[in-house]
Amino acid sequence: MKLAIYGYGNLGRGVEAAAAACPDMELTGIFTRRDPSAVRPLFDTTRVYPAAEVLEHKNEIDVLLICGGSATDLPEMTPALARSFNVVDSFDTHASIPAHFDAVERAAKEGGNLALISAGWDPGLFSLARAYATAILPNAQAYTFWGRGVSQGHSDAIRRFPGVRDARQYTVPIESALEAVRRGENPQLTTREKHLRECYVVLEEGADAAKIEQEIKTMPNYFADYDTVVHFISQEELLRDHAGIPHGGRVICTGRTGKELEHGDVIEYSLKLDSNPEFTAAVLVAYARAVGKMHHRGTTGCITVLDVAPADLSPRSGAELRHDLL
Amino acid sequence: MKLAIYGYGNLGRGVEAAAAACPDMELTGIFTRRDPSAVRPLFDTTRVYPAAEVLEHKNEIDVLLICGGSATDLPEMTPALARSFNVVDSFDTHASIPAHFDAVERAAKEGGNLALISAGWDPGLFSLARAYATAILPNAQAYTFWGRGVSQGHSDAIRRFPGVRDARQYTVPIESALEAVRRGENPQLTTREKHLRECYVVLEEGADAAKIEQEIKTMPNYFADYDTVVHFISQEELLRDHAGIPHGGRVICTGRTGKELEHGDVIEYSLKLDSNPEFTAAVLVAYARAVGKMHHRGTTGCITVLDVAPADLSPRSGAELRHDLL
Repeated sequence: MKLAIYGYGNLGRGVEAAAAACPDMELTGIFTRRDPSAVRPLFDTTRVYPAAEVLEHKNEIDVLLICGGSATDLPEMTPALARSFNVVDSFDTHASIPAHFDAVERAAKEGGNLALISAGWDPGLFSLARAYATAILPNAQAYTFWGRGVSQGHSDAIRRFPGVRDARQYTVPIESALEAVRRGENPQLTTREKHLRECYVVLEEGADAAKIEQEIKTMPNYFADYDTVVHFISQEELLRDHAGIPHGGRVICTGRTGKELEHGDVIEYSLKLDSNPEFTAAVLVAYARAVGKMHHRGTTGCITVLDVAPADLSPRSGAELRHDLL
Repeated sequence: MKLAIYGYGNLGRGVEAAAAACPDMELTGIFTRRDPSAVRPLFDTTRVYPAAEVLEHKNEIDVLLICGGSATDLPEMTPALARSFNVVDSFDTHASIPAHFDAVERAAKEGGNLALISAGWDPGLFSLARAYATAILPNAQAYTFWGRGVSQGHSDAIRRFPGVRDARQYTVPIESALEAVRRGENPQLTTREKHLRECYVVLEEGADAAKIEQEIKTMPNYFADYDTVVHFISQEELLRDHAGIPHGGRVICTGRTGKELEHGDVIEYSLKLDSNPEFTAAVLVAYARAVGKMHHRGTTGCITVLDVAPADLSPRSGAELRHDLL
């Protein structure tokens, strides 16, 4: 199967690595809006083309993985590219998924292509955990906790404060909340009760630490609704101790069975990832494989992870999967 | 959707309860090889028919849930019934799944029906956990641990010893093995290193405890390869403390990402179930829903959980699922 990458940041680099790990995949190249000569791929053999030339390579691309941002890139890119390609994206603005789905569905149907949106781990694998549990136990309550891991959005928000040179923000689930959920108490949890936010901040020379700490802790949407801890550290400490992009989290679903609902069940799905973008990319590549197979069978339009049978994610035959994994 | 239950033990009773919890499901009745007047269903309104009359009710049954044992019932029942009905079974003899699949595939194709075999949690939900993880991380190692929970087969095996009045056997995962797996060490684990077996045994008057303990611990296949702990207790204690049928377990998959595979990932899926048969039954009912939908779209033959898209398990529309769960 021939893949191509459209957009080359952390996620695109992850796709390049993930495709290389799949013997059934071949990478046609990277398409970038930057000057291709300024892009240094992971592998010397990977070709880099201008994004504007992607249509000229249509016959060399079975599935195009669109590795742009959800805020402004994907709402434009995915419908535009789905007219000409089978595509996968990682659109993760939950509230806008229905509108994005509709736009991509129209474009993909017009082009006779198949598009899968919102792949990754949340939305993505965590959506699957929520969907399986609530389909099996109709009374199930699903709780999603993120972390401990780096939130790029919150780290960026801190970096935009004047006086801040660099920053890393960790989202941390609150253990007592996890335990209350696992005990089947179906707690009503506020934002503050589910997660806390831990910030490692490098200041510019002469910046006012107390003032910046106060500004971070009271920033609306990002921090005001959470208990936030701010640590001031040196740039060396940040590079030494906080260079990675780890993340993860868990979906915990509790429900009840029996005539009188007398028995409780706890279903928990957790991820612990050293590299968030690389793992997300690996999910995208597996779903690209499914998109290729499903389009080959005649499926067109827009789908999500909820519409894909697990067997389609694997390069192995049904008989092998039944023998080895069932 | 109209369901019927074929075989009425613990699992059949669980299906009766699970179907009652689903507003989109209607239970046509229970089909039993026993005298129907001797069967007492959970709900007074549930009809009970002789198994021999099941064909006469063909038009009242969208999907038949076959609740027999894997050793002798299902290899006969599922192919026979798949000729005339859409069916779901919980066949769980791993090594015989390919042969069972082939027999059911032939029968279901002949009848123009759809059959889903090996639903439940292992095989079933644990198979999904293994399949998703290994499709996403091609180098992933999947480890499955069961328990702490009651093994019916091992409990039965102890009860067959002369001098034993009653027994309950718990399968217990070994914590140090779980931790080694989670650390990404890819340990080679022997049977003894993964689980231990804990037995609660009620003796007949005058039975030789030391001799029975020795016989249990050295029983081939069931106990000889494990560290086994035997507790002798009274019938009252057994009924008071060990009346339930709890079970559960976890699938832990570790893999690596990155150009040099420099980053590690841990994917863990766990279940903690107060009632093993009731939860298994809830899984069967969700897959019966998918079988009904997929047959309606024209799918026939034999499938497993690996062939079912998650959205088909839910009574909710694609738009609702995307809005609420994605």
